[in-house]
Amino acid sequence: MNGTLMAKETREVSDTLVRQLNRNEKVIAQLVAKVGESRPSLIYMIGRGSSDHAGVFAKYLFETTLGIPVCHAALSLSSIYNKALHLENALVFVISQSGGSNDIIAQTEMAKQAGAIVVGLINNEDAELRHIVDFFIPLSAGPELAVAATKSYIAALSALIHIAAKLSDNVQLFDDLRTAPKRLKEELEQPSLITIDAFASLERCVVLGRGFGYAIAREMALKIKEVCAIQAEAFSSAEFSHGPFALLNNPLSILNVLIYDESKQSHEDRLAIIKSSGGELMSTLKTAPDLHPAVQCLVIMQRFYLDIESISLALGMNPDSPEGLKKVTKTI
Amino acid sequence: MNGTLMAKETREVSDTLVRQLNRNEKVIAQLVAKVGESRPSLIYMIGRGSSDHAGVFAKYLFETTLGIPVCHAALSLSSIYNKALHLENALVFVISQSGGSNDIIAQTEMAKQAGAIVVGLINNEDAELRHIVDFFIPLSAGPELAVAATKSYIAALSALIHIAAKLSDNVQLFDDLRTAPKRLKEELEQPSLITIDAFASLERCVVLGRGFGYAIAREMALKIKEVCAIQAEAFSSAEFSHGPFALLNNPLSILNVLIYDESKQSHEDRLAIIKSSGGELMSTLKTAPDLHPAVQCLVIMQRFYLDIESISLALGMNPDSPEGLKKVTKTI
Repeated sequence: MNGTLMAKETREVSDTLVRQLNRNEKVIAQLVAKVGESRPSLIYMIGRGSSDHAGVFAKYLFETTLGIPVCHAALSLSSIYNKALHLENALVFVISQSGGSNDIIAQTEMAKQAGAIVVGLINNEDAELRHIVDFFIPLSAGPELAVAATKSYIAALSALIHIAAKLSDNVQLFDDLRTAPKRLKEELEQPSLITIDAFASLERCVVLGRGFGYAIAREMALKIKEVCAIQAEAFSSAEFSHGPFALLNNPLSILNVLIYDESKQSHEDRLAIIKSSGGELMSTLKTAPDLHPAVQCLVIMQRFYLDIESISLALGMNPDSPEGLKKVTKTI
Repeated sequence: MNGTLMAKETREVSDTLVRQLNRNEKVIAQLVAKVGESRPSLIYMIGRGSSDHAGVFAKYLFETTLGIPVCHAALSLSSIYNKALHLENALVFVISQSGGSNDIIAQTEMAKQAGAIVVGLINNEDAELRHIVDFFIPLSAGPELAVAATKSYIAALSALIHIAAKLSDNVQLFDDLRTAPKRLKEELEQPSLITIDAFASLERCVVLGRGFGYAIAREMALKIKEVCAIQAEAFSSAEFSHGPFALLNNPLSILNVLIYDESKQSHEDRLAIIKSSGGELMSTLKTAPDLHPAVQCLVIMQRFYLDIESISLALGMNPDSPEGLKKVTKTI
């Protein structure tokens, strides 16, 4: 049993999800009723860092289940350029662990004033932000003390899945989500998928996925930066096959995210070409092929967080408080 | 005078813009009339690689000038997941040099069938794609033979500015755009802003900007990968101040993109903190403070392309055909 906060908090994800599913049932039913009346033509995601990456996941989730285009906030719009958007037909999600960053609050207030339906997926239940939004959906992850977000990110994903399942009336997706706490608990007993060997000699690294796999690859690349100080960048395997392919002219390690869904064949075909062109495969993260791809992401992320925490320690770093990082960074 | 195609094509940007401004006047007037009738509530950008990065620029441009939210296509949606979006109130831009990639065509056809107004900013005038779109806006850059896009990217930016200026009836922006060909020509005689010294000893590199500066930083990072095989990643200086800040625990070189607009102070404040935390500033790309920030981007990008071409040569590489890259990569 590992002693860092990062490992401890990651191991709390299963319990978080049980709590969250119970707590959010009523407010999500209210949200579904409101969306049914208003029929938004756009979903607009507000977030930074890991919460922004939860927004990338939301794009694949809502676009594939609801067919509503999903747009990400450029946070400078309100706080720097002092501009507003026409968001009167939008369903806006603000995702935040702390609920305290100025740019997030400014952009949320802009959306509210524009007449959008504003939903807050917020972990810190004391945050002022919860009083700005129309629907407050608590992430229910409890205090998150490690600088690197773990359980709050997975909790944001599960709350989004809950909402998507109810909005699209997708019973299978909701059933898969309800099995997630059990599957997450079982996964804790499974062996690591990423080993220190690959990281010890690593010079340059990319994280490759496709579709839902790309959505979570973004968060993995950030975490590798945060707790290992290694410059990892995420790409869809299709996008990587264009310009970034030139990186293969030098040694390049690849962390592969494999989702069992319609993207699998195309992704594996691309990966075979990348490997035959010199890309060195470090590890393939994959699990739970029987579950909806969105729910696979929850289990994969938990595995990844545990593995990268061990690697950070093995590299002699402190995953709980990477040098130079604060838990809550306020930017405008 | 430099002998590569990349340098030659970059030097053609000024003439491209003169041609483009004349050719596109009529079709853009027709587009403005159509948008005036339809009043789209969403702008949806389709592109890959450099064309996707032109879409990032479009987000800052259209959101600040029109107040219409701008959304980027997740290209797997049509080609992998076989899903469609509700885009009946959308103005869709597809940006493509070749007009030939399958995922781009699939996503454009989906948008067309969904009832969107579809505009094609396409360089290759023989492309089938021009017959799918409602409004064909030629980039007028002429054949682009170097693998790395240069003039076609800047031409996409200038066409977007032309459209934004007319849609928002912003006379100042249009006047600034009309002076761009002259300014671009003058810039050709200016000295380099990035020197080989910084690149020769470079281990890890990020490109930092804010707002419009971030928009073009994405394209710069791609080009550094393509023609120097160096892993450069772009961040907004605000986003970098969160998790990625941990990268400063190892040597990190910074290419700084400075735009003279509302973002300047906040960006410079962030950069000062990053430098005092160990970030090594390689160069600051800045120019033409009297022009609209969007038009500054055209001049900065031309300077950057010329500088990075020289550096690629100095590193012993061939900027015209980086190993492993093809001009047109077809992905699904």
